[in-house]
Amino acid sequence: MARVAITLGDQAGVGPEVIAKLLSDPQNLENVEVVLLANEDELRSAEQQAGVSVPWSLDRKPGFVQLLPSSENAQHITLKEVSAAAGARVIHQLSRALSMARSQEINAILFGPLNKTSLKLAGMNHEDELRWFATELGFDGFTSELNILAELTTARVTSHIPMSEVAENVKHERVVAAIKLLNETLITAGKPSPRLGVCALNPHAGENGNFGREELDIIAPAVLAAKELGIDVEGPYPSDTIFATRRNLYDGIVTMYHDQGQIAMKLIGFDSGVTVQGGLPISIATPAHGTAFDIVGQGKASMGATQHAFDHTVRAALRNAKEFDGTPS
Amino acid sequence: MARVAITLGDQAGVGPEVIAKLLSDPQNLENVEVVLLANEDELRSAEQQAGVSVPWSLDRKPGFVQLLPSSENAQHITLKEVSAAAGARVIHQLSRALSMARSQEINAILFGPLNKTSLKLAGMNHEDELRWFATELGFDGFTSELNILAELTTARVTSHIPMSEVAENVKHERVVAAIKLLNETLITAGKPSPRLGVCALNPHAGENGNFGREELDIIAPAVLAAKELGIDVEGPYPSDTIFATRRNLYDGIVTMYHDQGQIAMKLIGFDSGVTVQGGLPISIATPAHGTAFDIVGQGKASMGATQHAFDHTVRAALRNAKEFDGTPS
Repeated sequence: MARVAITLGDQAGVGPEVIAKLLSDPQNLENVEVVLLANEDELRSAEQQAGVSVPWSLDRKPGFVQLLPSSENAQHITLKEVSAAAGARVIHQLSRALSMARSQEINAILFGPLNKTSLKLAGMNHEDELRWFATELGFDGFTSELNILAELTTARVTSHIPMSEVAENVKHERVVAAIKLLNETLITAGKPSPRLGVCALNPHAGENGNFGREELDIIAPAVLAAKELGIDVEGPYPSDTIFATRRNLYDGIVTMYHDQGQIAMKLIGFDSGVTVQGGLPISIATPAHGTAFDIVGQGKASMGATQHAFDHTVRAALRNAKEFDGTPS
Repeated sequence: MARVAITLGDQAGVGPEVIAKLLSDPQNLENVEVVLLANEDELRSAEQQAGVSVPWSLDRKPGFVQLLPSSENAQHITLKEVSAAAGARVIHQLSRALSMARSQEINAILFGPLNKTSLKLAGMNHEDELRWFATELGFDGFTSELNILAELTTARVTSHIPMSEVAENVKHERVVAAIKLLNETLITAGKPSPRLGVCALNPHAGENGNFGREELDIIAPAVLAAKELGIDVEGPYPSDTIFATRRNLYDGIVTMYHDQGQIAMKLIGFDSGVTVQGGLPISIATPAHGTAFDIVGQGKASMGATQHAFDHTVRAALRNAKEFDGTPS
């Protein structure tokens, strides 16, 4: 059976609460083995915040979450506050999950929402978490954060870099890699024949080279190259119209820069979506919303996004298990 | 009484139809004198397409549109097609309106939707129409296209330029000028104390200089300078959150580049909005939608956006008339 590792995310936020709600639903333990990287007191506190009971065991047992405590206890973490202690615990548990991934003990990872400031206080100085995951896994291929909504998924050619460096980083091979990654991710997400659209970089797609030539020289040829690989993809289209008037034609859209997709996705309702650390050798996903300090411990946090992230993770784990050991998905 | 010049826009599109609908409503002729730059046959054709009757006269007469025919007749224009003939007629009538503006015979201009390709075929080779208007008016100050929705208006620091040149054009004086222009436009639009927000340039607003320093070095100081001028403005905020979660706090948002605002405005429903050629010595506005070739002549074209553009134009004309000759608004 495929096996998924889960961490609570930042314990100052709503992560423990939404993960506890997720794991209290017996249906979520039917098709996959769940390993929770937390100590018993952390799980109890999560159950209490969520007002639920999670079926757990220290052993692998069908229908039960397997709790894998760490010999290292967490320092005291204050709720609703950024702290080095909270960031350090996140890093500790994610490192354990990545170590299990490297030794192929698990098939996919799901983590609760993180707080970037706490991670920085704890010493994570990478451009973003995706860079950290890639470094920890010793992976140096193309990666891209993917953002999944029920109706639309996006991948990015560039991400957390200055806007002044975006144009020079829109390169043929990166555009092709982002298209391929988006296509693969959508297949994993249960769309056997994804239809993809690609954003232009420049306003009005450059108007035939009047305001920039990247569409003509780089993006259109990359779209053609991806088509030749058998991917159902078209573009580039101006980014202000592709989201407003064409998004229903596509399962996924490739964007050239961070805000191009995020402005649209957040307006469409991305807080209920899933963020995937795409391109890595193992699927790593998280709900799209943040730590929501303002509602911690009130039982209010919706677990919709977490359920979507879990569902994606289970599909990815089944696919991974099938590829590596022939377990039928 | 304030006086507004109106042109039909591209006659291959829905412009004549929506302008005829606008001018068939007697209420629209109550508070302002309307001059229509068209020949009699052009107006008759517009009335026919719209299925309405416009009260018109060759003289200035209260409650009537004053038709100002041109001695030059239009070449034949084929409906629903781009053509040099259609573009040339647009340029001819807009030039007449600008000439009336220069001699202060009118206080504001409203034009029907244009087709950029037809304009190019007719020889308009400017970066955009706003550049053409500025050149024709001999104006070389800061200009910015403004986009007005009932709930939100945007101004841009940069517009129709390649993305590779955006960062270098985000300069202190341009950011201040865009804030001032947006503030003035909103006052004209009937908001006496506009509340403004300003977008960041970089993803996550650069995360304290980690992905670009324009927020720290240029945008924040420009926002401060505008505050010191008495403008109610704040920012910069990340552009993916300002539209999704903060836009209700503002009457207007200043964007750093074209698609940053247009992705959001088109998702919010900007086709019903108004585009203003901002910064010029005279107010020039148009409905935000295009020529809509697919529905020409079917009486289907909604004149909502045109009504909004007209209402804005009337307010601007009254303000202009008050400034220039003491006519009470």
